[in-house]
Amino acid sequence: MSETTYRTSEDGAAGPDPAPLPLRARREEPLRVLVWGENRHEQTEPEVAARYPDGMHGAIAAGVEANLGERAVVRTATLDDPEHGLAEEVLAGTDVLTWWGHAAHDEVDDAVVERVHRHVLAGMGLLVLHSGHWSKIFTRLMGTSCTLRWRSAHDRELVWTVDPTHPIARGVPHPMVIDEDEMYGEHFDIPAPDELVFLSTFSGGEVLRSGCTFKRGHGRVFYFSPGDQDYPVYFHEGVRRVISNGVEWAASDRRERSAPVLLRYETERFWSGHGYTGAVDPAARVAGQDGA
Amino acid sequence: MSETTYRTSEDGAAGPDPAPLPLRARREEPLRVLVWGENRHEQTEPEVAARYPDGMHGAIAAGVEANLGERAVVRTATLDDPEHGLAEEVLAGTDVLTWWGHAAHDEVDDAVVERVHRHVLAGMGLLVLHSGHWSKIFTRLMGTSCTLRWRSAHDRELVWTVDPTHPIARGVPHPMVIDEDEMYGEHFDIPAPDELVFLSTFSGGEVLRSGCTFKRGHGRVFYFSPGDQDYPVYFHEGVRRVISNGVEWAASDRRERSAPVLLRYETERFWSGHGYTGAVDPAARVAGQDGA
Amino acid sequence: MSETTYRTSEDGAAGPDPAPLPLRARREEPLRVLVWGENRHEQTEPEVAARYPDGMHGAIAAGVEANLGERAVVRTATLDDPEHGLAEEVLAGTDVLTWWGHAAHDEVDDAVVERVHRHVLAGMGLLVLHSGHWSKIFTRLMGTSCTLRWRSAHDRELVWTVDPTHPIARGVPHPMVIDEDEMYGEHFDIPAPDELVFLSTFSGGEVLRSGCTFKRGHGRVFYFSPGDQDYPVYFHEGVRRVISNGVEWAASDRRERSAPVLLRYETERFWSGHGYTGAVDPAARVAGQDGA
Amino acid sequence: MSETTYRTSEDGAAGPDPAPLPLRARREEPLRVLVWGENRHEQTEPEVAARYPDGMHGAIAAGVEANLGERAVVRTATLDDPEHGLAEEVLAGTDVLTWWGHAAHDEVDDAVVERVHRHVLAGMGLLVLHSGHWSKIFTRLMGTSCTLRWRSAHDRELVWTVDPTHPIARGVPHPMVIDEDEMYGEHFDIPAPDELVFLSTFSGGEVLRSGCTFKRGHGRVFYFSPGDQDYPVYFHEGVRRVISNGVEWAASDRRERSAPVLLRYETERFWSGHGYTGAVDPAARVAGQDGA
Repeated sequence: MSETTYRTSEDGAAGPDPAPLPLRARREEPLRVLVWGENRHEQTEPEVAARYPDGMHGAIAAGVEANLGERAVVRTATLDDPEHGLAEEVLAGTDVLTWWGHAAHDEVDDAVVERVHRHVLAGMGLLVLHSGHWSKIFTRLMGTSCTLRWRSAHDRELVWTVDPTHPIARGVPHPMVIDEDEMYGEHFDIPAPDELVFLSTFSGGEVLRSGCTFKRGHGRVFYFSPGDQDYPVYFHEGVRRVISNGVEWAASDRRERSAPVLLRYETERFWSGHGYTGAVDPAARVAGQDGA
Repeated sequence: MSETTYRTSEDGAAGPDPAPLPLRARREEPLRVLVWGENRHEQTEPEVAARYPDGMHGAIAAGVEANLGERAVVRTATLDDPEHGLAEEVLAGTDVLTWWGHAAHDEVDDAVVERVHRHVLAGMGLLVLHSGHWSKIFTRLMGTSCTLRWRSAHDRELVWTVDPTHPIARGVPHPMVIDEDEMYGEHFDIPAPDELVFLSTFSGGEVLRSGCTFKRGHGRVFYFSPGDQDYPVYFHEGVRRVISNGVEWAASDRRERSAPVLLRYETERFWSGHGYTGAVDPAARVAGQDGA
Repeated sequence: MSETTYRTSEDGAAGPDPAPLPLRARREEPLRVLVWGENRHEQTEPEVAARYPDGMHGAIAAGVEANLGERAVVRTATLDDPEHGLAEEVLAGTDVLTWWGHAAHDEVDDAVVERVHRHVLAGMGLLVLHSGHWSKIFTRLMGTSCTLRWRSAHDRELVWTVDPTHPIARGVPHPMVIDEDEMYGEHFDIPAPDELVFLSTFSGGEVLRSGCTFKRGHGRVFYFSPGDQDYPVYFHEGVRRVISNGVEWAASDRRERSAPVLLRYETERFWSGHGYTGAVDPAARVAGQDGA
Repeated sequence: MSETTYRTSEDGAAGPDPAPLPLRARREEPLRVLVWGENRHEQTEPEVAARYPDGMHGAIAAGVEANLGERAVVRTATLDDPEHGLAEEVLAGTDVLTWWGHAAHDEVDDAVVERVHRHVLAGMGLLVLHSGHWSKIFTRLMGTSCTLRWRSAHDRELVWTVDPTHPIARGVPHPMVIDEDEMYGEHFDIPAPDELVFLSTFSGGEVLRSGCTFKRGHGRVFYFSPGDQDYPVYFHEGVRRVISNGVEWAASDRRERSAPVLLRYETERFWSGHGYTGAVDPAARVAGQDGA
């Protein structure tokens, strides 16, 4: 299959993600986008429910649909759905997942986080939005605390493009003005991003690396900070444009969803890996299969 | 205190690492280096014990001592020590930790991994050596699978410098020849390193990004791949030089060991953060302290 | 026009590239690819002419056509054409330029190099191939010597993918085997690339960062090292695939070809820049237009 | 010599910089710092002369002396000195050069720029300050236009640290407040920096990547934007601290000042390069020395 980047092993792969995952859709088919929302503020705070009558996830999904049209099929899922709406077969059928959470990060089941993590490393795109910076999935992917400074005081936010050739910046005003938003500022404790696309400044003088890309495993991750339950940011045309651009960018070009695996290779047999049989196994040592 | 980078909060910090940590030694004092070794192969495999009579950790420690002399005080700790030799007060008194593990990654207690992780984010330097690529601490810091390809077949390894200005490359031959070593090859599933210092090639034709730096939180991390229980790599003068350079590079310049924290700041009060009181707290909302 | 990333200045832009450039084609139209070849070895060395009967540029062009089909319109130009085939109107009608040169770097007219540089900074994609590492345009874009080590001794080259999510790596075997090629090795004196896509190893043990991306101004640059006049590398299916992927990657997403400009902006007038009138101009100082 | 990173060639090096350069001082000796100032505003504008009675270069030099004490020996040079004070032997005796220019970039002789460039690639550190962004040496090293947006309107500048582990950030307040400065804002047309250390925001809402490191050849380059002839920025304690930290960071760890060279290596003779004899030389071809 000429399109397949990596040949599979002869003997089967041993590693942290042995389960085979189904092929993703070809690019010619619409992107399968899943917008995940915590959906708690909408239930407990009437003003949030009034601001976002279809939920914040509903507003985000509508923005992607408006921008991508028939290039995407958009669904939503929320925390209170069974398995948070993130069952194995749902993720297997998702090209890009967007994540908004805030009040209930701790309620997200660790097994689901593990599952999402595995799919990202295998090639599912992920957009982490705003307060998702403190979600389990984002801190796990980053390896850092992902802390920052913050203030909810109706700051004006200006979003500046520092990577004008980036596809995520396409058609985004420079700067993009958000009349009111929560302030998120440095120091933002993340690894240096692979690409820094946007910087946001706030009327109080703060700054944030607000649009950052990261590659992890076979997956692409985009963090974008604007957006909050207390401001109608997800109805902002520019914010919707960035999120939609991010969705298209995060979709994998690889045909196959598969995680990287640790394999032993014999000399000159570059494409035929053998499984890892364990680190200290006397029997294996005799067979020359002692560990990496 | 003019040397202190970050002022502390008035109201106390809330975040993943609230515990205050002691100040680290000034640069004028010797670096406090802790060489951690799993020390299992040495116990179960006579040929490894013969190759490394003082343990692999002993060989690594001797190399650092030989290169840094009185610029460092070097101790060792192993898996079978109480708390793996990594108690809170030990880490608090460590500037740079080096990590070699292989056969028993799973036996490392999660609480100790959490503790090491916290200290790295707060400023402790970390060197991860060879098979440590699959250690709990490294995969946690990277957020990826850290898998690679491998073969133990007496390959010659050549270590090439691609960042000749880097302090870790100081005095390292180009290339550095290791007559025999285990092969570790790409694809190595790590985030793109902040700095790529070395590339290793093997007589079988493989290549690895073998010397990589990563900043995480306030800590500096260096991964260096040469070194294995089945080859006397940790007696190689060049390998010892790189590890010693890495130890000096990884030591923090910050006076204070403290983790990044999430704090709320009022407008124009840049240095006086308030604690985070929780995401959906009606009482807090009244006081205008609702969450980030 | 909602697609336009940057608004133009009211007063006109002053800077190193004041000339307005025409709009590039929309993505729906085929990419306009220009394959530039020095075409000297083909004239002076019969064995090269025999190896590449349509010239090296002809072989490269055929590979792009074979891979991109109707997604691209491919033309060629050579050193001996008037203005080296790189007149202003030709570049204005080119989305991506590929560059192969070797024996006659010095014969490339500085005015043409300046022109190509200006178009790259304004958004034209550029692929620099093999010995183009020492071309005037590449060293000018990099700011370094771009030296490396080399040997033409029929080495086997293996091309390893280190960024498996990159669009340029799509469908490329891992590793890709080139039976014979010139050796290019580290240290390759380039800036650290924005993205490291491929590493090449050679049967002699050397390694090169052989596939590197760089963003410069509004342009995207891809350097790819395989390919030489003494080996039939540009008929290799994998090499052709990489070059074709690179062409698609290097094409700009911006609607408008325009160079970054230095402009003065009044407070709160983010989109209306004024021209720069010079650094020490007393008259201008009176008018409050003194220099940046 | 065990400290020497690169062995020299047997046959002599051929490349863009064949001239041997003298050894730099050992680290134990004081850093030899040369502060270069254009010194034109001081002559033509009385208010600048009043603000900076010893010249801007004098103020910068005094700040480095105050911070580094006996760790540095600081000299100054200006545009109107013979050879702009940058003769070959001066550069050969300089570990780190700082550069401030603005009104007279065009008056800097190209031969001197070439010389400085050669020394940077061979290992001399370079700090480019403020309006030096448009100097010949900086644009040559970057390969881009280095344009930005600007306004001189007494903006308050806040300098935020985004890389708290970086040695240049040591002891720098977060944020650092500069009561009045010229505004420099994005988009700043530079290559993505190797390390982004500081971001500056301005009271008008703009932002700049204001502290950026770049490695070029064997040299380290630090760009730092605060500082202008119309504001007393170079008397600011924090700005002086950053510049002094930058000077220490930019000094090379390599023993030898030498530029990268292009050399031919025979198989298995990794340390003995042969000179490059030209690209199309029939005689050389017979001898198997045809070009890279």
